[in-house]
Amino acid sequence: MRMVDLIEKKREGQALTKEEIGFIIREYTADKIPDYQMSALLMTIFYEDMTDEEIAALTLAMANSGEKIDLSSINGIKVDKHSTGGVGDTTTLVLAPLVASVGVPVAKMSGRGLGYTGGTLDKLESIPGFKIELSDRAFIAEVNTNKVAVIGQSGDLAPADKKLYALRDVTATVDSIPLIASSIMSKKIAAGADAIVLDVTTGEGAFMKNLEDARRLSHTMVRIGELAERKTMAVISDMSQPLGEAIGNSLEVIEAIETLQGQGPDDLLEMCYVLGSQMVVLGKKAETLEEARALLEEAIASGAAFETFKKMVKNQGGDETICTHPGRLLTAQFELELPAQTSGVVAKLVANEIGIAAMMLGAGRQTKEDTIDHGVGLKLHKKVGDQVEKGESLATIYSNTEQIAEVKKLLYQNIIIEESADEPTLVHEIITE
Amino acid sequence: MRMVDLIEKKREGQALTKEEIGFIIREYTADKIPDYQMSALLMTIFYEDMTDEEIAALTLAMANSGEKIDLSSINGIKVDKHSTGGVGDTTTLVLAPLVASVGVPVAKMSGRGLGYTGGTLDKLESIPGFKIELSDRAFIAEVNTNKVAVIGQSGDLAPADKKLYALRDVTATVDSIPLIASSIMSKKIAAGADAIVLDVTTGEGAFMKNLEDARRLSHTMVRIGELAERKTMAVISDMSQPLGEAIGNSLEVIEAIETLQGQGPDDLLEMCYVLGSQMVVLGKKAETLEEARALLEEAIASGAAFETFKKMVKNQGGDETICTHPGRLLTAQFELELPAQTSGVVAKLVANEIGIAAMMLGAGRQTKEDTIDHGVGLKLHKKVGDQVEKGESLATIYSNTEQIAEVKKLLYQNIIIEESADEPTLVHEIITE
Repeated sequence: MRMVDLIEKKREGQALTKEEIGFIIREYTADKIPDYQMSALLMTIFYEDMTDEEIAALTLAMANSGEKIDLSSINGIKVDKHSTGGVGDTTTLVLAPLVASVGVPVAKMSGRGLGYTGGTLDKLESIPGFKIELSDRAFIAEVNTNKVAVIGQSGDLAPADKKLYALRDVTATVDSIPLIASSIMSKKIAAGADAIVLDVTTGEGAFMKNLEDARRLSHTMVRIGELAERKTMAVISDMSQPLGEAIGNSLEVIEAIETLQGQGPDDLLEMCYVLGSQMVVLGKKAETLEEARALLEEAIASGAAFETFKKMVKNQGGDETICTHPGRLLTAQFELELPAQTSGVVAKLVANEIGIAAMMLGAGRQTKEDTIDHGVGLKLHKKVGDQVEKGESLATIYSNTEQIAEVKKLLYQNIIIEESADEPTLVHEIITE
Repeated sequence: MRMVDLIEKKREGQALTKEEIGFIIREYTADKIPDYQMSALLMTIFYEDMTDEEIAALTLAMANSGEKIDLSSINGIKVDKHSTGGVGDTTTLVLAPLVASVGVPVAKMSGRGLGYTGGTLDKLESIPGFKIELSDRAFIAEVNTNKVAVIGQSGDLAPADKKLYALRDVTATVDSIPLIASSIMSKKIAAGADAIVLDVTTGEGAFMKNLEDARRLSHTMVRIGELAERKTMAVISDMSQPLGEAIGNSLEVIEAIETLQGQGPDDLLEMCYVLGSQMVVLGKKAETLEEARALLEEAIASGAAFETFKKMVKNQGGDETICTHPGRLLTAQFELELPAQTSGVVAKLVANEIGIAAMMLGAGRQTKEDTIDHGVGLKLHKKVGDQVEKGESLATIYSNTEQIAEVKKLLYQNIIIEESADEPTLVHEIITE
């Protein structure tokens, strides 16, 4: 088999076989196929697309390219959740203990963030003492007792995906649906998931800018899951405005704690119920979504979800007193208000630009080498559709510097106040096949 | 400027500017853009095509990427000729002295062949003593006195093209019309041509398998020439069967000598008149194609063309006695006949397969490292449309081994005898804009 012939075959519109895709991924991971051939193939795939069978073969080849996590000694159906990313997306911090508290085991491996704000690991590390490294044995034991543990990715999961992603990033081949879908699913499969709930965000703050693309990506991933025998569902959610009110690491932990106590923002809580219900059904702790939702609402109301979170913090070495005194996480030197310059209705909160404002404060990384300032960020006081009076605070800015003219300017440009606003949609669609 | 942004721009269907293309070629030639980004761009170009302005900018950037030959001290309009290649294509050996003999200066830089048979240089080297290396000064002096010299490419002409071609070869991006056109034209422009006649071959033995592609390539190159201020014309010629009767290096030199004496195969002579007339008009030695053709016919009839060839051989150090005794070039140990297995009419001579048969005898190179056996090859006694009786020789095989069962098998499979045959077309179209 010669790589040049396989590139040409794909370029001529023919589907590659499972054996051919296996050869490509194996040889590329072993550095036997050069990057310049792989990037030509990636660009052909961008144009020619892939069949479901090709995408499934690619996903499995990447999942099998390195270590795989064996979660078989955890009792029950392990349901993983993945979000295609957004701004102020605190769902994992809420969902993991919430779902665990109704009996679905959550053995979660999370990543760090490269973008507007930190990833789940960065957020958890804003809790003093919280350890994101556990041995495989301790991780599994923890999930079997408390039903939940969230740790950093250990080992060499899906190295082919890692290598391919770096190449796609510099060759303008990132936004290809078969490549995005196989990248996400290969990591979930290598991480040992039995079932997967996908949160596919759409809108200006998301990778999928429009609903059509989000729908295609969702269907593709659900079908890969089916072919790989991992029951998969996707929720297409809105990311035209940030989710919840907090953007920043400590601020999002505080927001998660409030939400687990039933006092968080409505949209965040609703997203957690929608995604969580799917997870509970896939985890076979309820037969219908309605039944699952009732269990979750009860777990919030009874304090069970909050207790599970507290235990998780304690068992992973974190300072559990922050759960009852979350204000201790507010470490930013300055808290500055952003007064509205005009009265009206918030018509738009441009999610990605507001994310950039948070990053400028130090809440996110622009490059892998940047360090995160856990205490800084934004708390929005107004969301789309809210009435606002001139002079009223639109947001509190948590900063370690008073020099925030640029941040304020960016925020004013992207919190758009008009006479009226369209009602925002939170969940666009649920895709199950 | 970042290469990844330029790849994305092209991928989104936008045309690259002259400055952007200049940046890409400059940085790539200097090894500052990696192959994996360039191959992604090449694949995008394969799909997105290029505007005439983009192709012209690419051509000039490649032509300017290394040394350029200055032919300004040669008197007259320097007309170069390029063929996209074929089997048994002896035209350069005939055309160069023929056109020179009517006063058009021919300062020809040729290449070696990689394929069925040798290139023009390989063919000339089958003449004992013939030197294909001349200093620039000697080359120019020779063209000023005898009007013709054919030498090997010296120096570092269009290095960007060389580097790109090697990359295209292993990334399935060879057959892209803008890339083929710019590759050919960049070398011609760097080699100092004032005007260019293109022989674009089409058919099974050629790179352009169908007339539609040949037409697009021709128009593209003619327009590049116009934008680069090099008057350019293209002749679309047939390469479904080999041109002339000889395939092999010495055999083609003999055929060229016979043709220059008016005794060569009709199709080869006709092609030389068609291409030569274009060159004479572009070289301003005649006003119309008819007038040009009359000059060329007269040069053959008077022996002037043959005398020019003889002088070229002598002046470049070759044994000129082969011109009057070409049989001396027949050095193959065995001359074996290929008797027809059936009677009928030759319906097809599959050019590329017959070329492979010649290569198997040693007439061509499969890899750059292979050496050529100048004496071996084929002489076809029947062309498409010819009557043939069972037992009559279809071809003479010139070989240095008697173990030619495979060669014979291949030839029988590709010299197809039927009850009747379609009249072959020699020249499909002439493209001047």
